[in-house]
Amino acid sequence: MYMAKVVGNIVATRKDKSLVGYKLMIVKRINVKCEFIGHEEVAADYVGAGIGDYVLLCKGSAVRVEEQKQKASIDMAIIGIIDTMDS
Amino acid sequence: MYMAKVVGNIVATRKDKSLVGYKLMIVKRINVKCEFIGHEEVAADYVGAGIGDYVLLCKGSAVRVEEQKQKASIDMAIIGIIDTMDS
Amino acid sequence: MYMAKVVGNIVATRKDKSLVGYKLMIVKRINVKCEFIGHEEVAADYVGAGIGDYVLLCKGSAVRVEEQKQKASIDMAIIGIIDTMDS
Amino acid sequence: MYMAKVVGNIVATRKDKSLVGYKLMIVKRINVKCEFIGHEEVAADYVGAGIGDYVLLCKGSAVRVEEQKQKASIDMAIIGIIDTMDS
Amino acid sequence: MYMAKVVGNIVATRKDKSLVGYKLMIVKRINVKCEFIGHEEVAADYVGAGIGDYVLLCKGSAVRVEEQKQKASIDMAIIGIIDTMDS
Repeated sequence: MYMAKVVGNIVATRKDKSLVGYKLMIVKRINVKCEFIGHEEVAADYVGAGIGDYVLLCKGSAVRVEEQKQKASIDMAIIGIIDTMDS
Repeated sequence: MYMAKVVGNIVATRKDKSLVGYKLMIVKRINVKCEFIGHEEVAADYVGAGIGDYVLLCKGSAVRVEEQKQKASIDMAIIGIIDTMDS
Repeated sequence: MYMAKVVGNIVATRKDKSLVGYKLMIVKRINVKCEFIGHEEVAADYVGAGIGDYVLLCKGSAVRVEEQKQKASIDMAIIGIIDTMDS
Repeated sequence: MYMAKVVGNIVATRKDKSLVGYKLMIVKRINVKCEFIGHEEVAADYVGAGIGDYVLLCKGSAVRVEEQKQKASIDMAIIGIIDTMDS
Repeated sequence: MYMAKVVGNIVATRKDKSLVGYKLMIVKRINVKCEFIGHEEVAADYVGAGIGDYVLLCKGSAVRVEEQKQKASIDMAIIGIIDTMDS
């Protein structure tokens, strides 16, 4: 997992049908100083995140452990909204 | 997932038989300004994408969740055509 | 697996329910000289690590092999406290 | 998946028994101009590739989808010989 | 898979119980000229490797295909000792 900021969203009308119903957010990884690292990625939103939120990103098969997500072509998801990070 | 542009395609006559029937596109990752990032990769096309399209790329076991894809040696796929990205 | 140092922790009230009960630590990869490498990541703590500890990080599906973790959206975990590393 | 060139091979007498019978090739990733990218990796050869061939590389669990490969400790394989790449 | 050299070992008394019985080696990736690439990683030793050996590293779920390893939190393993690499 890593920390990221939600910076935008994606609209894709033609897409794999397993993605229907998921909000696809553009996210950008951050460090503990909230500085951006690397490049934008796209994550399915599982927790109702909004643009500007600091979030927890999860990737790989870990995002499809829930029964109703096992057939979704999702490899990255927002799984938490960060309240505070102490370091 | 990340954003990419379709930049070409691959012809491979001799290949793993599980790949027969899939269009193999050369894709290159982009950022929100549509600038290229990194190097070319190869993705199976699941949505009928064409050269020049901006697409959504998915990787790992997420691209084999559908019943008829579970026996395909595919680790990356185009799963959506991007209409707009706002940030 | 790689070596890391625990540098902080994350509080996220709104999160995927499968994460409830796990301590989420901010970790930073180190080399054998204990110098930091790369950027902060977030790992679930499986072994009772504290801030300042040198730990062993594991990622991917390997962190969900135990029965009671198979439904947790965790892709990285602290699986050991390093006593010594010789090289 | 990505494009690569076969540049050598590996001999390992003492190895995990699940690898017996597989040719292990040294491969190096290329871009569309056939220039080398990054460092050498080792892939099991599934299609009868030879040194100098331009090939398609696949990684992760995708290389173990076939029944008789499910118990092999292989995380990267050559799954096609590239005839042409247009871009 | 990639080539690496065993450069040390890790002692971790407090660890995930699934790791008990595995030797944890510090490894560093190499290229075909045996020059070091990148940073140290930690791999479970499956083949009886020693410090100074040139080895074959495997990662991901591929290192847990064997029955008795399916419940081990291991994401990287030494699966062969390299005799020769020709390129």
